[in-house]
Amino acid sequence: MPQLRLALAQVNPCVGDLAGNADLVVEWSRKAVEAGAHLVVFPEMVLTGYPVEDLALRESFAAASRQALVELARRLDDAGAGGVPVFVGYLDRDERGMRNAAAVLHGGEVVARQFKHHLPNYGVFDERRYFTPGDTLDVVRLHGLEIGMVICEDLWQDGGPIAALGAAGVDLVVSPNASPYERNKDDLRLPLVARRAAEAKAPLAYVNTVGGQDELVFDGDTIVVGADGELLTRAPQFVEHLVVLDLDLPGGASREAGEFEGFEVRRLVISEDPLPAYDPLPAPQAAEPLSDEAEVWHALVTGLRDYVHKNGFRSVVLGLSGGIDSAVVAALAVDALGADSVHCVSMPSVYSSDHSKSDAHDLAQRTGLHYSVQPIADMVKVFVDQLGLTGLAEENVQARCRGIALMGLSNQHGHLVLATGNKSELAVGYSTIYGDAVGGFAPIKDVLKTLVWDLARWRNAQAEKLGEQPPIPENSISKPPSAELRPGQVDTDSLPDYDLLDSLLDDYVEGDKGYHDLIEMGFDHELVDRVLRMVDKAEYKRRQYPPGTKITLKAFGRDRRLPITNGWREG
Amino acid sequence: MPQLRLALAQVNPCVGDLAGNADLVVEWSRKAVEAGAHLVVFPEMVLTGYPVEDLALRESFAAASRQALVELARRLDDAGAGGVPVFVGYLDRDERGMRNAAAVLHGGEVVARQFKHHLPNYGVFDERRYFTPGDTLDVVRLHGLEIGMVICEDLWQDGGPIAALGAAGVDLVVSPNASPYERNKDDLRLPLVARRAAEAKAPLAYVNTVGGQDELVFDGDTIVVGADGELLTRAPQFVEHLVVLDLDLPGGASREAGEFEGFEVRRLVISEDPLPAYDPLPAPQAAEPLSDEAEVWHALVTGLRDYVHKNGFRSVVLGLSGGIDSAVVAALAVDALGADSVHCVSMPSVYSSDHSKSDAHDLAQRTGLHYSVQPIADMVKVFVDQLGLTGLAEENVQARCRGIALMGLSNQHGHLVLATGNKSELAVGYSTIYGDAVGGFAPIKDVLKTLVWDLARWRNAQAEKLGEQPPIPENSISKPPSAELRPGQVDTDSLPDYDLLDSLLDDYVEGDKGYHDLIEMGFDHELVDRVLRMVDKAEYKRRQYPPGTKITLKAFGRDRRLPITNGWREG
Repeated sequence: MPQLRLALAQVNPCVGDLAGNADLVVEWSRKAVEAGAHLVVFPEMVLTGYPVEDLALRESFAAASRQALVELARRLDDAGAGGVPVFVGYLDRDERGMRNAAAVLHGGEVVARQFKHHLPNYGVFDERRYFTPGDTLDVVRLHGLEIGMVICEDLWQDGGPIAALGAAGVDLVVSPNASPYERNKDDLRLPLVARRAAEAKAPLAYVNTVGGQDELVFDGDTIVVGADGELLTRAPQFVEHLVVLDLDLPGGASREAGEFEGFEVRRLVISEDPLPAYDPLPAPQAAEPLSDEAEVWHALVTGLRDYVHKNGFRSVVLGLSGGIDSAVVAALAVDALGADSVHCVSMPSVYSSDHSKSDAHDLAQRTGLHYSVQPIADMVKVFVDQLGLTGLAEENVQARCRGIALMGLSNQHGHLVLATGNKSELAVGYSTIYGDAVGGFAPIKDVLKTLVWDLARWRNAQAEKLGEQPPIPENSISKPPSAELRPGQVDTDSLPDYDLLDSLLDDYVEGDKGYHDLIEMGFDHELVDRVLRMVDKAEYKRRQYPPGTKITLKAFGRDRRLPITNGWREG
Repeated sequence: MPQLRLALAQVNPCVGDLAGNADLVVEWSRKAVEAGAHLVVFPEMVLTGYPVEDLALRESFAAASRQALVELARRLDDAGAGGVPVFVGYLDRDERGMRNAAAVLHGGEVVARQFKHHLPNYGVFDERRYFTPGDTLDVVRLHGLEIGMVICEDLWQDGGPIAALGAAGVDLVVSPNASPYERNKDDLRLPLVARRAAEAKAPLAYVNTVGGQDELVFDGDTIVVGADGELLTRAPQFVEHLVVLDLDLPGGASREAGEFEGFEVRRLVISEDPLPAYDPLPAPQAAEPLSDEAEVWHALVTGLRDYVHKNGFRSVVLGLSGGIDSAVVAALAVDALGADSVHCVSMPSVYSSDHSKSDAHDLAQRTGLHYSVQPIADMVKVFVDQLGLTGLAEENVQARCRGIALMGLSNQHGHLVLATGNKSELAVGYSTIYGDAVGGFAPIKDVLKTLVWDLARWRNAQAEKLGEQPPIPENSISKPPSAELRPGQVDTDSLPDYDLLDSLLDDYVEGDKGYHDLIEMGFDHELVDRVLRMVDKAEYKRRQYPPGTKITLKAFGRDRRLPITNGWREG
């Protein structure tokens, strides 16, 4: 049977950085050629990064992307990678509009290009705002084998390009993707890819982006299946990785061009002669998907690291209260950036307990991060006395003095401030705007409180398994949560128990259940009424919250768009 | 010729407030019936408000909207308005998905319903995210006349529903709209409405929403034209208004049902018999469109007033620096809410000039708003000394102490904080996050600095024309702008002259010109380089800025969506 050595480059581009992303393509193509690959596939829009959002509407950006593609073809040739076709996603523009495109670069030239047909426009996706759908499929002939391509959503939707390739005939399908990580998605990808291979009647190679881009994180999870749906290999999640795999292809697919299932299928010839037989490499072992907590932890670490580095920061600063949220954020930051890049400040007020200070200090010692103490009593006193503040106004001033102090240290020393709020707080508005909400990035913004605890326990257990010091003090995990903004305050003064709250939030926010559904599911009607009002009222606070890595379907941010002025109340 | 008395209700609904919006429809329908109208038309999605954004995805909200429509039909009948058909926009859902819909209510029942066909998905619009397009047109027969309907974008796009109604035959077209105000749109609506009337071969009544909804403001500008395109009447902008107009219709349109231009045209009979001849009312005079500055001023006042009131606030607080931005925001707030609802605080630092304090005091005396002085020197000193802050870190602490003070007063007294930043500052990031950017609403967020000055001069001139005290001190208009965060500082230390900066921003942001275009237009290349870098770098600040009324095509906010992590640099 005809052989072919496939290289799939699971890489981490940065949106807009055409020069850096082109370097990435050259570097990984060279590695692929050194490994003897016969073709190399990169993720969707790797040259521009994904999602480019309204950059897609700038004529100058589209022109630069087209230009960068032509230059990349030449550079690949100069770098000794001109002899193998390289599949590269980019932003194109023609007389019908902007295009989510992928090209085949070979011999210093752009030899084929294809535009995405199915444009997702739900959740985080806005592609109908930007792109015009394509209806042409460029199948390239390589060593006598017919190689077809489908871009991301074209794989997820029934019919369309996959059906057309199946009808027209191909020996292999490659699929560049930028498919964000999402918790509890279960393993949707493998069965999907297997089904589409069967529909295309050919092996299918799914290549995904890896890395963080603002609120999105891409987990990689590149997959190759045979025509029968059998898993041939799978890349590890959350790391850049080059899959190199020898395929035995049956070959002999039809070479007919023309219209199939409403698409114009074109046939482009790179090389006709089959490869002489060679000894294949041992098949790379398929990576095991990570456990739920491991997956979330890696997603948060990846999102945080890339946000910090891609925005040109080298270090972060955060307030360490001794509580679970800031402890987990500090541990994430140490895993993402190294202890020497993490600066923590304990900022006790007159209401802070002794254990707040000792637990914060304990965490600093366990992890080796930079630690200092800045009491806020003097700052708070001036505001409270001069303005005559009492009650909630006095509580909030404490959180805001901490926010100012962190921003002062950020401005003075160049650290990015991390906000430590979790999704449960943010959902019900249990946070102080311009106070604990201060920061450039909020690593656990999309993590419900009960999951924050689970992650802390998981991270400590992992450390124990490896014979390392668990980073998070046991007392930070086990004590009752408190904002400590007045004497003896605990979260349950204002909120239901977190088990109950999170369960309700999950059904209301993720599940889109209505008031009556929630009552029917057994939640107490007063609780439902109270929590739903809190969630609806807090929309304005969430709008001004910093970005944070998204791990669920409905994070607060760009994939949940609600009015602030809103007279709608469930129930 | 057959007569018909048309009532067009240019009203101000609130998104989500189904009960309040239903009350509005009943109240204005009753007025229309009292005026002897034979049919009443309300704006697009009046029952839910517009835009509902992701509320459209909540099953419970769609169900409540459908239920509210049925109840509204009954209530109209009970209120004595059951005898005239009332056209009401709402959110519908059927087996094919969510629908941007409008119904005809008559005799206590929903007698016709139609779904929007063209779904806008550019700028502020996201309708392809939410709605399924309709392809059926319900033409109702009223007193023997054929009345067709097109919803908003169906009027703006060539072909489609208007062409279908023209082919099928109608005696009158009504069009419910929610079309946001936009500066420099010139007068696009009247020629468009006139052209569509010609295509439909019938008079056309365009009814628009009025009022503010988060960042959008709707100006009304309801228009009626004859079949020949002649303007019959036009409602005033930015106020609720009932247009009552007698039409002489030729009648005799074809009554054929079936498929026209790809749409299924249905014919529904409310009443066959022509009205007996009656004495028409004198035709209402067409309102003159407002001048440019007047239009912007009214848009900002309307947006501010509705944001405050629809979110349940009664009063606002803002920092008064003596400079032009806070002076204009204070004057807008007084016009929107009345002087007794506006609380201003002068917060001098050690670097504040004498004129800062005297100009702020002067404005307070001119307008009669509440005024107090809170020096910030003691607050600033604690942070600077304890944390060892210098340079930019020290400058920012001053702005942040002011922000905390305003939020303290807001929490203590229940005022909404207004941020006073303008679009030029926000564009280049010349503002302090958690400092002068603090606030629940930013009235001049979309107003370039040069326009802030123009508006101040216009508002003062208006006052003089009316023999009133001009609200804005001349010195606030004429002195060079300064943040006063260090001795002798003026804006031009850090920024180009505002005339030049605004002209460049207008071409870069509104005009989407690229680096090379701007050089070709004659801008200095160092200036272009510097300003474009500032704009690109400030994206993260703009994301955390409060909402503010949008008056241009590309305000910073939901209609300009850019990545924060972004390696793209023009040029």
